Amino acid sequence: MKIYVVGIGPGDRADMTPRAVDALSEAEVIVGYGTYIELIKDIIDGKEIISSTMTRETERCRTALECALAGRCAAVVSSGDAGVYGMASLVYEICAGHPEVEIEVIPGITAACSGAAVAGAPIGHDFAVISLSDRLTSWEVIEKRLRLAAEADFVICLYNPSSKKRSGYLKRACECIAEYKSAETQCACAVNIGRNGERYEIYTLDELKDAHTDMFTTVFIGNSETRVINGRLVTPRGYRI
Amino acid sequence: MKIYVVGIGPGDRADMTPRAVDALSEAEVIVGYGTYIELIKDIIDGKEIISSTMTRETERCRTALECALAGRCAAVVSSGDAGVYGMASLVYEICAGHPEVEIEVIPGITAACSGAAVAGAPIGHDFAVISLSDRLTSWEVIEKRLRLAAEADFVICLYNPSSKKRSGYLKRACECIAEYKSAETQCACAVNIGRNGERYEIYTLDELKDAHTDMFTTVFIGNSETRVINGRLVTPRGYRI
Repeated sequence: MKIYVVGIGPGDRADMTPRAVDALSEAEVIVGYGTYIELIKDIIDGKEIISSTMTRETERCRTALECALAGRCAAVVSSGDAGVYGMASLVYEICAGHPEVEIEVIPGITAACSGAAVAGAPIGHDFAVISLSDRLTSWEVIEKRLRLAAEADFVICLYNPSSKKRSGYLKRACECIAEYKSAETQCACAVNIGRNGERYEIYTLDELKDAHTDMFTTVFIGNSETRVINGRLVTPRGYRI
Repeated sequence: MKIYVVGIGPGDRADMTPRAVDALSEAEVIVGYGTYIELIKDIIDGKEIISSTMTRETERCRTALECALAGRCAAVVSSGDAGVYGMASLVYEICAGHPEVEIEVIPGITAACSGAAVAGAPIGHDFAVISLSDRLTSWEVIEKRLRLAAEADFVICLYNPSSKKRSGYLKRACECIAEYKSAETQCACAVNIGRNGERYEIYTLDELKDAHTDMFTTVFIGNSETRVINGRLVTPRGYRI
């Protein structure tokens, strides 16, 4: 009885690990959000596929548990890394009363890493990863983390910087961060990572407030040493050059 | 004129992306620390290999630049992700005066993600990544970041928790964190990720102070919601179960 929780990376097949491909090939049932299923449809051709809309995460994980209890190997699919705002922790929670079900998390390239590679090398030193989605976390907690991360001079990587319902969140986040970081702090947005239209934009923290972002954007806010080198965002580790 | 900066993941070939393999195959010269070169020797068989000891990072990147300027494609190899305490930012810095040299960073699975998958799902919510190495960062800055990350209730992932020269650092780090997090905070160490002897251990924050760690250990310190489920460390995202 086994459930794989598979991180498929940013989207391009070249960034998906062989271990992820093997797990998807071994599984009898594939469970995931429709958009992610589409990215791997050639690997899972002919398998039973249970896809659903974005907000049905708990239901999807219960389905995977039911499959496993019925003796069928299930794979729950996440984009990026399954452990970073992905399905891994939820699968463990859903399976809490079932120690007989083996869970194997297959790590993938998360947007902090794939987006950083597109924009340059922004997370070359200590960094904090914060989601701006307040669907499951109160905005007060998010603001507190933004302020403390800025005070600590972390590079800050923002997931879910905005959506249709949350259009002003990035601006509010930048204002919290600007209480501790200079308005001239170098920042970048990586967009459509691993997909058509992949690109990045460089901003100052002051400019970032009004940047257009969507669900396919990952935001990087530099530390006090971050700078732009040959057009890319780079945070030095501290080596003497 | 091109330099690839390649993240080869935790060590196991199954966790290395096809894009990393392709870049290593395309490169004419491979530059890296000897231990990492060993992990990929079958891919780079027959190529010119320039390996050196751990502390010669700047020299290795200069060598890559010289190769590129001479028209030879070079690949600089990092374990994990090349952008997370890896060679990516240093390559950009070394190439600052040479915009004609194209740099492509190939992301890999970093220890925060691969170690999390071994230990369970500890980074399922906002997290901070901090290196305890004070070779390039002052211990005062490290302590400040530890305290603020703990105050923010981030899950904290520690890289380089100790080495032969830094045996008491993890204890000191735990003491800083314990100023803000409960002594009962659930923690884990992931050891030898993707290599022989891969394993994890669960601790409370109080126990973690005296845990044995080495350069092949990645440490996870939970947030206030993190708990142990079926023996694994899990940080809920916040879904109602």
